[in-house]
Amino acid sequence: MSAILAVGPYTEAEREAFKAELQPTFIGTRAELDALDDTACAAVRAIAYKGHRPFGAEEMDRFANLGVVANFGVGYDAIDVGAASERGIKVTNTPDVLNDDVADLAIAMWLMQAREMRQAEAWVRDGSWAEKGSAPLNRKVSGGTVGIMGMGRIGRDIADRLAAFKTEVHYHARSEKDTPGWTYHADPVALAQAVDYLFIALVGGPETEKYVSKEVIAALGERGVIINISRGTTIDEEAMLDALESGAIAGAGLDVFVGEPKVNPRFLKLDNVVLQPHQGSATHETRAAMAKLQRDNVAAHLAGNDLLTPVN
Amino acid sequence: MSAILAVGPYTEAEREAFKAELQPTFIGTRAELDALDDTACAAVRAIAYKGHRPFGAEEMDRFANLGVVANFGVGYDAIDVGAASERGIKVTNTPDVLNDDVADLAIAMWLMQAREMRQAEAWVRDGSWAEKGSAPLNRKVSGGTVGIMGMGRIGRDIADRLAAFKTEVHYHARSEKDTPGWTYHADPVALAQAVDYLFIALVGGPETEKYVSKEVIAALGERGVIINISRGTTIDEEAMLDALESGAIAGAGLDVFVGEPKVNPRFLKLDNVVLQPHQGSATHETRAAMAKLQRDNVAAHLAGNDLLTPVN
Repeated sequence: MSAILAVGPYTEAEREAFKAELQPTFIGTRAELDALDDTACAAVRAIAYKGHRPFGAEEMDRFANLGVVANFGVGYDAIDVGAASERGIKVTNTPDVLNDDVADLAIAMWLMQAREMRQAEAWVRDGSWAEKGSAPLNRKVSGGTVGIMGMGRIGRDIADRLAAFKTEVHYHARSEKDTPGWTYHADPVALAQAVDYLFIALVGGPETEKYVSKEVIAALGERGVIINISRGTTIDEEAMLDALESGAIAGAGLDVFVGEPKVNPRFLKLDNVVLQPHQGSATHETRAAMAKLQRDNVAAHLAGNDLLTPVN
Repeated sequence: MSAILAVGPYTEAEREAFKAELQPTFIGTRAELDALDDTACAAVRAIAYKGHRPFGAEEMDRFANLGVVANFGVGYDAIDVGAASERGIKVTNTPDVLNDDVADLAIAMWLMQAREMRQAEAWVRDGSWAEKGSAPLNRKVSGGTVGIMGMGRIGRDIADRLAAFKTEVHYHARSEKDTPGWTYHADPVALAQAVDYLFIALVGGPETEKYVSKEVIAALGERGVIINISRGTTIDEEAMLDALESGAIAGAGLDVFVGEPKVNPRFLKLDNVVLQPHQGSATHETRAAMAKLQRDNVAAHLAGNDLLTPVN
């Protein structure tokens, strides 16, 4: 039996790369996981986890010799780290290698929303440009006031890009950071009041659930646009939908949703939103780098070496 | 009769702003222009021009007292500046105020093309995400090699933004510029060979017609992507279409086209292109700034003052 379970929707390329280095057993579905017998479970020393389905105490207790859950992704909110720690199980993630991609998508959604590029593209493709003339005017973004909610590594990468667009950068984090003169707000509502564009770069999990509250959304105002590349849970999604529908805020660019991949159908009726399928890190280059870091963590554990990127 | 003709598709907001400061006669169509009688033409001292339809010697000769043609836009290739100079007519444009918007759209098309955001948006909106799972992987842009063809003010604004995406910047211009260590190529083909993403920021007009030649396009190679925010004429469009169809290059993001607003129908069959309706400067804020600069040039001429932004 294999000492490594690779659990989740691994692509063909990822499976090939995995098999070239290690000997994992691939588990694609929950039913396959449940079907493992006791001998198979006892052999498992490492799980390489991919996906957003919760993996907690109940799952961990099936594997008596499990030493590490190596998550594919920087956000490990699917994995119950507290339960892992209680059992002496280490958890690893894949930080940093995806920061650029996620920051790029944040900037891209910001531009695409404000410059109404989906609508403009349709204007070309459906013949409106030739028949009716110029598309409607849209909104300038460079020089605007922007806010970052959560100034971790990804937040910083977003802010560095925004600065090149001649924006005035504000941010909120648990504490003030070393920045090139950006404005710190201890209060998230004060941040929202100060800016037109609010980028959400919080970590996920219970502590940040609905951190972007109804009050924060209201403070953003009718020129306000929310860009979210973190987790759907970090925003009060119902309050945001109300604000988008009523015009209480101007728009949103969203890569993450509550209950994804199902999306609240109210989003689909809106024209002032850019909707992306949680593709922040979904480039060939970055997914290969994430998979490599995950495998390296698994291999380090099996060899008795220090883990590369432990989170507990 | 009015001393000012405002020729072209002015929006209602632009007309109101114009009338609040000056007393123009608005001419929306070529037929209206042709219908002006001799008395009306003799009264005209300034033309505020908007649009891409050629305005040359024939048109100028109808206005014996015309002193300035104030163009709406930085690109004045629609106006025959040589013919104007011969007649002692000054031409003005609206530089700088639109640079940020145009650079923003260039970056936006680059990101949208590489990250396949139009396809990803459809993946959410048509239910594919919920039914089929993750969208196909796409391409990382940060850290790539980028080239700017034409390092004028807009080219520089594009390059400054690209640098924040940790790219390696190369450029071609008539002469080497003062840059933060970017790589100059005297030969446009050499520039294309050196980079994956080629941004076209040339001035329009006969001198740059098909400057992005079949050879330049071939040198870009199968990972190559062309972003054009200049004029459709600066690229050998048929050669680019051939390369896009055959996979000789990877894609394009285009805001300008030969014969626009009609677009070669071959573009509409392609999935590897982002197509925008010449909306580089089409924000409320920037169009208002352009209109103001155009009016200020007209007013300066009528008052006998120095023009603000003359081009001849």
